[in-house]
Amino acid sequence: MLVKVNEKQFDKIIDKLKILVYDYNSKIKEYGVYLKPYHIVYKNGKKYIYIGKYWYKLEKIGGKLKWIYLGKNKPIEDMPNPPQIPTMTIIKEDNEYVIDEEILYKLEG
Amino acid sequence: MLVKVNEKQFDKIIDKLKILVYDYNSKIKEYGVYLKPYHIVYKNGKKYIYIGKYWYKLEKIGGKLKWIYLGKNKPIEDMPNPPQIPTMTIIKEDNEYVIDEEILYKLEG
Repeated sequence: MLVKVNEKQFDKIIDKLKILVYDYNSKIKEYGVYLKPYHIVYKNGKKYIYIGKYWYKLEKIGGKLKWIYLGKNKPIEDMPNPPQIPTMTIIKEDNEYVIDEEILYKLEG
Repeated sequence: MLVKVNEKQFDKIIDKLKILVYDYNSKIKEYGVYLKPYHIVYKNGKKYIYIGKYWYKLEKIGGKLKWIYLGKNKPIEDMPNPPQIPTMTIIKEDNEYVIDEEILYKLEG
């Protein structure tokens, strides 16, 4: 079920999810690819937030660092599997965030 | 001079700053410490955001991953220096973000 949380609650949830992504990225450091911790898409006046959903690598192009998109799946078969973050889309509407409450159960305790 | 930016502008700025932090963290991966990309403090009803300012390590305590604060200075002398992110505090007030405009010049081009 979708629930609404305020910004402070949202920040706490995101922090807990991002730490899973950082930890995982530190485990796969030798592969030169990342699960992107925090990815924002603005579309149709809404803001969509994706945590640890997409694979990227960092490249320097013309002196500027860029995220290079690698897809939704583990790009290298041998790598350990990513953390089990429930598939979800976080949508920001006005000043509230709409999330799947499943994520709250996952992060409890 | 302090300027106000809206959320979308803010997201773009943060993305450019965080990528510098990620890139740096990938260079220091063998040291087991991190510049924390995004750190939030709520204080006196305001939200303060710090990008790449504090050093942390990740530890698993009682099965939970935690950020362990290491300070504002490079914790290991031998490590490469962190990216030159202007010292700044980002304050969120209502729905706007107050930043030092110096950061905008740094990120241009």
